[in-house]
Amino acid sequence: MDNITAGMAAKGAGAAVPRNHSNYVIPGLYDLSVEDTNWVLTSSFIIFTMQTGFGMLESGCVSIKNEVNIMMKNVIDIVLGGFTYWLFGYGMSFGRGPLSNPFIAIGDFLLDPPVGDALMGQIFAAFLFQLSFATTATTIVSGAMAERCNFKAYCLFSFLNTAVYCIPAGWVWGEHGFLNKMGAVDIAGSGPVHLIGGASAFASAAMLGPRLGRYSEGYDPLPLGNPVNACMGLFVLWWGWLAFNSGSTYGVSGAKWQYAARAAVMTMMGSFGGGFISSIYSFWRHGGGMDIMDLINGVLGSLVSITAGCFLYRAWEALVIGAIGSLFCVLAMPLFDRMGVDDPVGASAVHGVCGIWGVIAVGLFADNPIPLDTTNGRSGLFKGGGWYLLGVQTLSAFCLCCWGICSTFLLLYVINKIIPIRMDPHEELLGADLTEHRIRHSQIGLSRAISALAPIKVDLKNIAGIQPIGINPGHERSIDQLRAAEDKLQQWQSYLEQVSAPRGNIKMEGQSHADITFKPRTAGNVFSRRIPARKSISGGLYRPNNSEFPVIGQAPKMDKDPNFAWVD
Amino acid sequence: MDNITAGMAAKGAGAAVPRNHSNYVIPGLYDLSVEDTNWVLTSSFIIFTMQTGFGMLESGCVSIKNEVNIMMKNVIDIVLGGFTYWLFGYGMSFGRGPLSNPFIAIGDFLLDPPVGDALMGQIFAAFLFQLSFATTATTIVSGAMAERCNFKAYCLFSFLNTAVYCIPAGWVWGEHGFLNKMGAVDIAGSGPVHLIGGASAFASAAMLGPRLGRYSEGYDPLPLGNPVNACMGLFVLWWGWLAFNSGSTYGVSGAKWQYAARAAVMTMMGSFGGGFISSIYSFWRHGGGMDIMDLINGVLGSLVSITAGCFLYRAWEALVIGAIGSLFCVLAMPLFDRMGVDDPVGASAVHGVCGIWGVIAVGLFADNPIPLDTTNGRSGLFKGGGWYLLGVQTLSAFCLCCWGICSTFLLLYVINKIIPIRMDPHEELLGADLTEHRIRHSQIGLSRAISALAPIKVDLKNIAGIQPIGINPGHERSIDQLRAAEDKLQQWQSYLEQVSAPRGNIKMEGQSHADITFKPRTAGNVFSRRIPARKSISGGLYRPNNSEFPVIGQAPKMDKDPNFAWVD
Amino acid sequence: MDNITAGMAAKGAGAAVPRNHSNYVIPGLYDLSVEDTNWVLTSSFIIFTMQTGFGMLESGCVSIKNEVNIMMKNVIDIVLGGFTYWLFGYGMSFGRGPLSNPFIAIGDFLLDPPVGDALMGQIFAAFLFQLSFATTATTIVSGAMAERCNFKAYCLFSFLNTAVYCIPAGWVWGEHGFLNKMGAVDIAGSGPVHLIGGASAFASAAMLGPRLGRYSEGYDPLPLGNPVNACMGLFVLWWGWLAFNSGSTYGVSGAKWQYAARAAVMTMMGSFGGGFISSIYSFWRHGGGMDIMDLINGVLGSLVSITAGCFLYRAWEALVIGAIGSLFCVLAMPLFDRMGVDDPVGASAVHGVCGIWGVIAVGLFADNPIPLDTTNGRSGLFKGGGWYLLGVQTLSAFCLCCWGICSTFLLLYVINKIIPIRMDPHEELLGADLTEHRIRHSQIGLSRAISALAPIKVDLKNIAGIQPIGINPGHERSIDQLRAAEDKLQQWQSYLEQVSAPRGNIKMEGQSHADITFKPRTAGNVFSRRIPARKSISGGLYRPNNSEFPVIGQAPKMDKDPNFAWVD
Repeated sequence: MDNITAGMAAKGAGAAVPRNHSNYVIPGLYDLSVEDTNWVLTSSFIIFTMQTGFGMLESGCVSIKNEVNIMMKNVIDIVLGGFTYWLFGYGMSFGRGPLSNPFIAIGDFLLDPPVGDALMGQIFAAFLFQLSFATTATTIVSGAMAERCNFKAYCLFSFLNTAVYCIPAGWVWGEHGFLNKMGAVDIAGSGPVHLIGGASAFASAAMLGPRLGRYSEGYDPLPLGNPVNACMGLFVLWWGWLAFNSGSTYGVSGAKWQYAARAAVMTMMGSFGGGFISSIYSFWRHGGGMDIMDLINGVLGSLVSITAGCFLYRAWEALVIGAIGSLFCVLAMPLFDRMGVDDPVGASAVHGVCGIWGVIAVGLFADNPIPLDTTNGRSGLFKGGGWYLLGVQTLSAFCLCCWGICSTFLLLYVINKIIPIRMDPHEELLGADLTEHRIRHSQIGLSRAISALAPIKVDLKNIAGIQPIGINPGHERSIDQLRAAEDKLQQWQSYLEQVSAPRGNIKMEGQSHADITFKPRTAGNVFSRRIPARKSISGGLYRPNNSEFPVIGQAPKMDKDPNFAWVD
Repeated sequence: MDNITAGMAAKGAGAAVPRNHSNYVIPGLYDLSVEDTNWVLTSSFIIFTMQTGFGMLESGCVSIKNEVNIMMKNVIDIVLGGFTYWLFGYGMSFGRGPLSNPFIAIGDFLLDPPVGDALMGQIFAAFLFQLSFATTATTIVSGAMAERCNFKAYCLFSFLNTAVYCIPAGWVWGEHGFLNKMGAVDIAGSGPVHLIGGASAFASAAMLGPRLGRYSEGYDPLPLGNPVNACMGLFVLWWGWLAFNSGSTYGVSGAKWQYAARAAVMTMMGSFGGGFISSIYSFWRHGGGMDIMDLINGVLGSLVSITAGCFLYRAWEALVIGAIGSLFCVLAMPLFDRMGVDDPVGASAVHGVCGIWGVIAVGLFADNPIPLDTTNGRSGLFKGGGWYLLGVQTLSAFCLCCWGICSTFLLLYVINKIIPIRMDPHEELLGADLTEHRIRHSQIGLSRAISALAPIKVDLKNIAGIQPIGINPGHERSIDQLRAAEDKLQQWQSYLEQVSAPRGNIKMEGQSHADITFKPRTAGNVFSRRIPARKSISGGLYRPNNSEFPVIGQAPKMDKDPNFAWVD
Repeated sequence: MDNITAGMAAKGAGAAVPRNHSNYVIPGLYDLSVEDTNWVLTSSFIIFTMQTGFGMLESGCVSIKNEVNIMMKNVIDIVLGGFTYWLFGYGMSFGRGPLSNPFIAIGDFLLDPPVGDALMGQIFAAFLFQLSFATTATTIVSGAMAERCNFKAYCLFSFLNTAVYCIPAGWVWGEHGFLNKMGAVDIAGSGPVHLIGGASAFASAAMLGPRLGRYSEGYDPLPLGNPVNACMGLFVLWWGWLAFNSGSTYGVSGAKWQYAARAAVMTMMGSFGGGFISSIYSFWRHGGGMDIMDLINGVLGSLVSITAGCFLYRAWEALVIGAIGSLFCVLAMPLFDRMGVDDPVGASAVHGVCGIWGVIAVGLFADNPIPLDTTNGRSGLFKGGGWYLLGVQTLSAFCLCCWGICSTFLLLYVINKIIPIRMDPHEELLGADLTEHRIRHSQIGLSRAISALAPIKVDLKNIAGIQPIGINPGHERSIDQLRAAEDKLQQWQSYLEQVSAPRGNIKMEGQSHADITFKPRTAGNVFSRRIPARKSISGGLYRPNNSEFPVIGQAPKMDKDPNFAWVD
């Protein structure tokens, strides 16, 4: 992405930007005009909405008893991922200190240009844009670790995971990066964002092992927790992706705006190809039915595939690249399951496999986007550019994939020594929502699970008292009191009827309300409950055994409740 | 919309755009400056979010057993609708080939300007913007066909439906269009987008017939599946509409930006009027209660009404137009039900009826937006512009309405010959989520339906095995095993107690954990389950009939599960 | 916010804007260039999406039986709040009539600049931006009143609440305002938007009194209704906040764009600090668990805290301000509960307490943002600016807080005389979704509540007939008919078997389908239901007692249903 701007700088296009009074060395990253900054900021605002999409998709894909936990992990991802990006991540990708080398940048940590720095606006715009990329990359992993990763271990992982993304992002996009110097092209991050995220997802899913009982009934995917939310997540990601790719022209000055428009159209074209192929595949594979994860991940996979060269392709090429990407994705999902790598949302396939394809596709199909020097004047193999670009892209994919897997493996290995990354199996059976966040879903068998685990797991007493979601426990108690009072009323009623049977009906309290026609209950009443037959009555006269006469029909008891209101 | 730009071009305002090196003929459509392009692109990004809104609204309105299916239909709508828009739709609306005639444009199919084309940026921006309109129009129909339309037939319909929108969009917005030439005004598409969509929705709902049992208990609407999502859909659509209308100035150069601001404010004003009237209506009609579909569709109807002339009205006029539109909408919904046209989301009323009103309202209220020539210098009847504009707008509404109904009828008639458009009634009873996507919702009586249909419908065996959403079946099995083991433990415990009763309590395995106070279960324990009274014990000593001693209290069984982890 | 632009106007920067032909007096509010207008409009579009966020958060936080009601209240808030903002709100904040005084502006009601007004674009852009702020402020209150506020009283409140926001907004942002004249600084509204909203929320929660049974089981928060939606609401608000703060530079011309970028980054930094601290606090307080409301409200509180001075801070200061704000917030939530103020979503703590802190923090940390005169050249205490700014900010917080509480108290007191603001306790037990909107949630014990209340509450008959959400009642009836028919078939089958037992099996209708292997049911069949043992058969031959032979196996009954289809 900053290939472009680096190029512009080299051509002196950035000369208009005042550079004298800044303490920051001036890379191409900061060659932003006012219009460019607006574009970059607005794009960033929309890119951040992709977090909502990831949240919806991931919480929709996991089982209900973990759906809140995955949302919390995504919140933590942004908080800790963003914080560490400011602490050290940005400096690892784009720092310009003297120790920077082709492997890692060093410098510009705790980025904070003061008022009066001539580049303040550009620096903050660039930082926000890169921050939106970084949080996207780290969020990808959370889905693959869902339903079985210890929450505290995940927080630690989230804190350190920034480095996993930032170092290779520097390879491709930093001025110091060895892949950048070799001419690797990646406009919006099929490689650094998605391939790294996907490889990291693969490694973490493999290390964690499958969810308990995942393969006990075969390799079919487990049922989703909230499929509508999963679809909604696809939608939110889809429209966010437009800004993600289109914003990656990194401005609209010069000829960039033309390619911003092209990037947006090609992003949509890629998704059309991907959606088309993955739906046909799914029809074929499921005998006329359609698996929603095939379609969702097929579309997402095609979007990942188009991302690296989003404005380098012609329309039909975008269709084809998206179609091939989605096919790779839907084939890889069951394959990974066969390998025993249990990735609940399919992040490894969507971001990993399609990320590889996206990076390589640039080497095959890329146009030279005159007058931008995004590709350093090179073209892809099919456009007569020869093998060089394809070779560099393949090398790039290989390096990123290795880095993603190895660094994540190492990181999780270390974290596992400090906090076990796998949840306690009993807690996994109960779900992280209950054990970590004290949220008890109803209707999904949690009582049964608690009951089964009670003799084994010693600290369940406190969990047993948690109220299920959506209920007001105070209301339940009020209703119990009402029912008890009503039962009492009926007992009195029967008693009085028995006592006074020869003398006609008594007037009850309840009847004093003019508009109630409160005839004795019959079985057909919609509200009637089965009143237990009172065996004790049959022998002789039954008399309710307490002296408190129920208040129903008078002012309801609750009005005396101290809870009620400062008004009146 | 391109009236404006066509006008600007006619005045030579577009002269700044280089036109020499493009293979594309230059219509007003491509007279976009850099700022205009940014505006159009950003608006498009936001307009696409309306798809999320439609998805939320529609999936919230249908019954739970079809909520995923309607989301899938919306995904397919974008994939196939977008693909065909590129294939032939854009060319039917705006193509500039020699065969173009007032009825249909022909040319510019498979739009793909290469790098180096001087108009590349403008063309792609225009295409993306029109694409966002086209996908909106085709999505409107899906709601009206919900819950009973065969999924494969719908895919075919979605593929061909593009033509239903694109031909009349050309009438109104294309340079060739006969309505455009007569001076019809429709800024953001009350006519081509909403009226066509609504008429199409009406025709398809009528052809499909009502849902099974829809009117068996009167004309009251069926309960929604997820009313919160429906409200959320309203919100997402509402804010998307701002960009929809405001972006339809098609740029910000010249005086367009002033009208972009006016369009946004009038869009809000219209919705205020609509929401106000529809909530009063709903209070009145439901005796003080408020029906949420009245309010949701009232607001949406007012937004549709304001769309055609969004920057042509003054504030109070926008209020009135919105109010009248919402009133038409809430009155039309029950009317259509009386006609036996079962439209689950009310798309016919919202987009159809209000679309007609929106188009005609321009003829009544339109200002002449100096210096833009959106209205070709004309004004509405109430602004002293005479009857001409009203006549043209009425004709426009009539033509679009007829086209929408007839073309959809024809299209569905043909599709019905290939694939029956109506779902098999048994599958309708089971819901499309289960039969098409193998998603089994829990808690909505699906087991009962499967059981009832089992003798009739021969291929239900495979459906019976599908696990309900949100549950991890492997976990359920683990818990069953745990409970079995615990039962076994208790049997042993009783046995040992009986055997050793005189000699005091035995120390159990479970007690070796220091922190467990594992006293024999009493009835009041929160976790206790009713242990079946063992009749066999009463006669003599009961001895558990297998020799395997349960492992509970030691390392839990699951740790030996091969599912567990590559780490340690 | 218009400090900035007022300043620019004073410097003559606005001279480029033509001012001659407008009927509107020209305040700094309308000194917007074309680029500024675009920025303001685009920001407004995104700010409105925060309504979606508020809706998700609030409907996720309340119990399920009130989740639709709170959404409806939010819709009404926008409709009535927006309408009244146009009617009188904008004029109270920014009107320029001769009666304007330091306490309240008067003029510019029913804002409606005509075509041809030279400032039309600026005025509408300014109005839309201020409208997005006003609707945000009024929506904050709805959460605090959730689950117990009468719907009609709320509508009235919503209509009048605009004044509660607009008058103090004028104090701080209007040219006439006494706080503005004293030099109070509030860029994006920690004070007028959030503090007013939060104080209003506190007052209304206190006046309404706690929900029924809220504190009957201690002070622990009640379970949420939909925690995933609550998290999603956080996300949507978070990204909307970027535009909220960044857009509050009120343009990008001059040096404003640099501070727009800074505002966006500092907004994120503040939320990182807040999320970090509130998650540590929550871990500590809950012994290793994490309460989701702590994290959600901690992040929101930090965003509120950073809002007043969003581009006046350095990065580490933003972190600290956010961290302190979130700590105040998570400490205030249980404190308010102890005070008996039951705020279901925590709006008082998030917007009120953090609003105070946000306003005061400006007095401590603010830079002088050269060359903008946002702070009138002053700096905060820690930046060497002395005590003046801190004093003014503290006074500002005090005035706003007093106004928010007193005016809301007065307003609700008056409304309570007209319509009681507290729901009828019986209706509260049933939930507003059922009593106001006739929406019956399933699985949350509503039948039990209806049954308990039936003897007391006289108008429940109509509620009892409402169908639960997500079900198609017609389908249920169809299935009942199918089951009845099948029972009949089996009776006949048994009968025929008994009659013809010696003569071998009869061929049933059902078997005429070639592909059915319809063997007599055995107990193990997945679909089998327990057929009641027929005692009457054992004595002699049982004969089904009606003469109608079931049609199953032939064309299904439903096909003759008049509901079916205009096609074929």
